[in-house]
Amino acid sequence: MSDGTKHIAVIGIGSGDPDQLTLGAVKAMRSTDVFFVLEKGEEKSSLTRLRRTMLAEHVPGPHRVVEAEDPWRDRAQGSRGGYADAVHDWRRRRADICERLIREELAPGQRGAFLVWGDPSLYDSTLAVLEEITARGNVTFTYDVVPGVSSVSTLAARHRVGLNRVGRPIHITPGRRLAETVGNDDGDVIVMLDAHESFRQFAGGGTWIYWGAYLGTPDEILISGPVEEVAEDIRRARAAARAEHGWIMDTYLLRPCGDA
Amino acid sequence: MSDGTKHIAVIGIGSGDPDQLTLGAVKAMRSTDVFFVLEKGEEKSSLTRLRRTMLAEHVPGPHRVVEAEDPWRDRAQGSRGGYADAVHDWRRRRADICERLIREELAPGQRGAFLVWGDPSLYDSTLAVLEEITARGNVTFTYDVVPGVSSVSTLAARHRVGLNRVGRPIHITPGRRLAETVGNDDGDVIVMLDAHESFRQFAGGGTWIYWGAYLGTPDEILISGPVEEVAEDIRRARAAARAEHGWIMDTYLLRPCGDA
Repeated sequence: MSDGTKHIAVIGIGSGDPDQLTLGAVKAMRSTDVFFVLEKGEEKSSLTRLRRTMLAEHVPGPHRVVEAEDPWRDRAQGSRGGYADAVHDWRRRRADICERLIREELAPGQRGAFLVWGDPSLYDSTLAVLEEITARGNVTFTYDVVPGVSSVSTLAARHRVGLNRVGRPIHITPGRRLAETVGNDDGDVIVMLDAHESFRQFAGGGTWIYWGAYLGTPDEILISGPVEEVAEDIRRARAAARAEHGWIMDTYLLRPCGDA
Repeated sequence: MSDGTKHIAVIGIGSGDPDQLTLGAVKAMRSTDVFFVLEKGEEKSSLTRLRRTMLAEHVPGPHRVVEAEDPWRDRAQGSRGGYADAVHDWRRRRADICERLIREELAPGQRGAFLVWGDPSLYDSTLAVLEEITARGNVTFTYDVVPGVSSVSTLAARHRVGLNRVGRPIHITPGRRLAETVGNDDGDVIVMLDAHESFRQFAGGGTWIYWGAYLGTPDEILISGPVEEVAEDIRRARAAARAEHGWIMDTYLLRPCGDA
């Protein structure tokens, strides 16, 4: 980057286990001058600590960490259009902040980085934010993406199951879209971003759940079984963990029973 | 494993870029006594070379590599039941071979490993094969899974796109199930294992394709654009690459146009 172009690396750092860092992620982190961190306020401080530990262990050379506050996001809007509008609005404000960071905190020719939990292609807004900043044209930079191990892959690994059955599709859906995604065909369903324990709608029998929270971290919790038998265990585990940590990040796989 | 129990690690090694190895995969490889490799005959020899290079670079200590021939698989059966039956039959024969490898080639207390391209949870049979061997009960062993970077994450990273749009689901499907998966809802579709260029059914307009082959390797090819504009480019690129390498492994994302 000796020509003065600024460069941004979007680096997937795995779902919480520091051993999920790839060799490429470590290389990219070591060639980074400035790490940009958008803090989500009080919650998820254990993740912030984990990220600092990763930097301390793998980036011995000189670097700066620039923190900014993540913009407030309106989570009250329930309808689908409202949800998407709220996210787009939040992304615009996030783009405002990131544009300023790239313009003011990164010198010509320097390399900046965003560290993304899991894989940057899966329900993360960093790439959309960089695309929006590029489209605005107020600051010039190049960027690339280092893929990471997703929480979905981690969930499957910890339960030692595949995500698909032979020759069948897989569906990944936010919790709010679960009802309309299930039953379209014979595929398995992975649910992310589910604040409402939507799996309980399958307590009528016939569905197996593989559930996991804080995947890859020392706080990891795994529960699996027929939904009707383990739904209450999961509810209790979620409530207890949320009370203890102040936040929870969980995901799960739903598979028709007796149909391996 | 000093108690004499045999252990098997199923290690995801990324989609083809040696830098996609995770720190955990390297650790697991370094504690492995015997690597089991099922050879697929003449094809994919470049992948075999790449795996050998990874072992030479990351496993300096003593280890053995035991190769066996992957059982022949009947790919002629077209109907869905026929396809699943053929795969299950192939898995049984694969389990026969792996059971013999674990029984005869691994001493009590030793650690064996299967290196899996991409992520072991995504359209790979190793976990199902180990489950079948465990169920037979002829040989006792423990096993765990090291998740890897999937070719799906690599595809998205190379094209610098997310796999989902805001709040919407994602569908991953084998090529043969594409027609029935698309159109179920407003989600994006990722197609794997497609020998028949099924994307051409969307050449009527309105669909964007992000296509990639040999992802992560020096032979990587990326093409993106509206299906009707790039379908012929992809067809030519696939034909030329298959002629040159003797095999092709590709995957792609389909997204409705003008609907970011």
